[in-house]
Amino acid sequence: MTSSPAIEGLKQALRRLPGVGPKSAQRMAFHLLSRDREGARALSEAIRIALERVRHCRRCNDFSEDELCPVCASPRRDHTLLCVVETPADLASIEQSAAYNGLYFVLMGRLSPLDGIGPEELGLQRLETLLDEGQIREVILATNLTVEGEATAHYIGDLARARGIRASRIAYGVPVGGELEYTDRGTLARALTGRHDV
Amino acid sequence: MTSSPAIEGLKQALRRLPGVGPKSAQRMAFHLLSRDREGARALSEAIRIALERVRHCRRCNDFSEDELCPVCASPRRDHTLLCVVETPADLASIEQSAAYNGLYFVLMGRLSPLDGIGPEELGLQRLETLLDEGQIREVILATNLTVEGEATAHYIGDLARARGIRASRIAYGVPVGGELEYTDRGTLARALTGRHDV
Repeated sequence: MTSSPAIEGLKQALRRLPGVGPKSAQRMAFHLLSRDREGARALSEAIRIALERVRHCRRCNDFSEDELCPVCASPRRDHTLLCVVETPADLASIEQSAAYNGLYFVLMGRLSPLDGIGPEELGLQRLETLLDEGQIREVILATNLTVEGEATAHYIGDLARARGIRASRIAYGVPVGGELEYTDRGTLARALTGRHDV
Repeated sequence: MTSSPAIEGLKQALRRLPGVGPKSAQRMAFHLLSRDREGARALSEAIRIALERVRHCRRCNDFSEDELCPVCASPRRDHTLLCVVETPADLASIEQSAAYNGLYFVLMGRLSPLDGIGPEELGLQRLETLLDEGQIREVILATNLTVEGEATAHYIGDLARARGIRASRIAYGVPVGGELEYTDRGTLARALTGRHDV
């Protein structure tokens, strides 16, 4: 593949995808141009359509094609429970567990002062407005167990409690089916400090 | 991310890329929609432009925006040498070595009877026409060292010799900088059978 502006442009554009380096980009460009031109056309179109149609739900901030996403619009969901997650992918994982029937709020990030992301940049104003409406009785904090995720959970927990709303954190510990022998130290420590009476 | 036809379509389209499974596709879709909409637009456009402009060089079959690729069009290249490779990526690797100054022929595959790819499907007719022109004095076989690559090299070597053209195979053996201790058995066996007098 001698250099051609169109191929170079395609490789550069593919490298903006997460986890794609120069070698993968070259392999993908080659695949699209020589083996799957139909797939290439489909991908170009799918991106265009998604950019055009996908916006954020006015209430929970998840991706949605409508002003209100199907979860927020559903009368069957428990509108007194609000689960706060970092990303739409986290939301999808919880939905797949089928263990939750409340609503969500998607932060699209986490507090990270070092990267200049404070409460304002994260748009926590919208979350406060939601809490002020008075319908929510419990906020479930499902941010990740990282320094930033913990700080974010702490901050939002304070927001909830200041309004007399219960705040809870999902349990972190040994995964179901996990064996103690092969569980990392951090998880074991968390499982021990998070123990509860039986 | 609750299901939305546009997002699902994007994830499906991304999965057609080599090495992209459901989890990567979801991560990529999320990245494009929430963190890099500009990159998403650029990717959609880059694919469209590449599909429109990139075709195959009339002579060597490599990707090219012109009827003749820069290598085939160059009067500085040795037009008596023809290096046969499987893919444009292989060609790019050889060009980067800066050790070759002849022309190429890109097979865009290899003989693979089990997959129904015979000499006809691989378009070897075009290679034969090229050899019949009488300009080429040596065909360098640079297909991969797999069963199919070896069979392809053997077949094309016969085509060349039948026309009185010299056929050679690139050397396979211990890589430069490689240590015998850590070289796999197959490579060592090849290095031994391929030994030459010094």
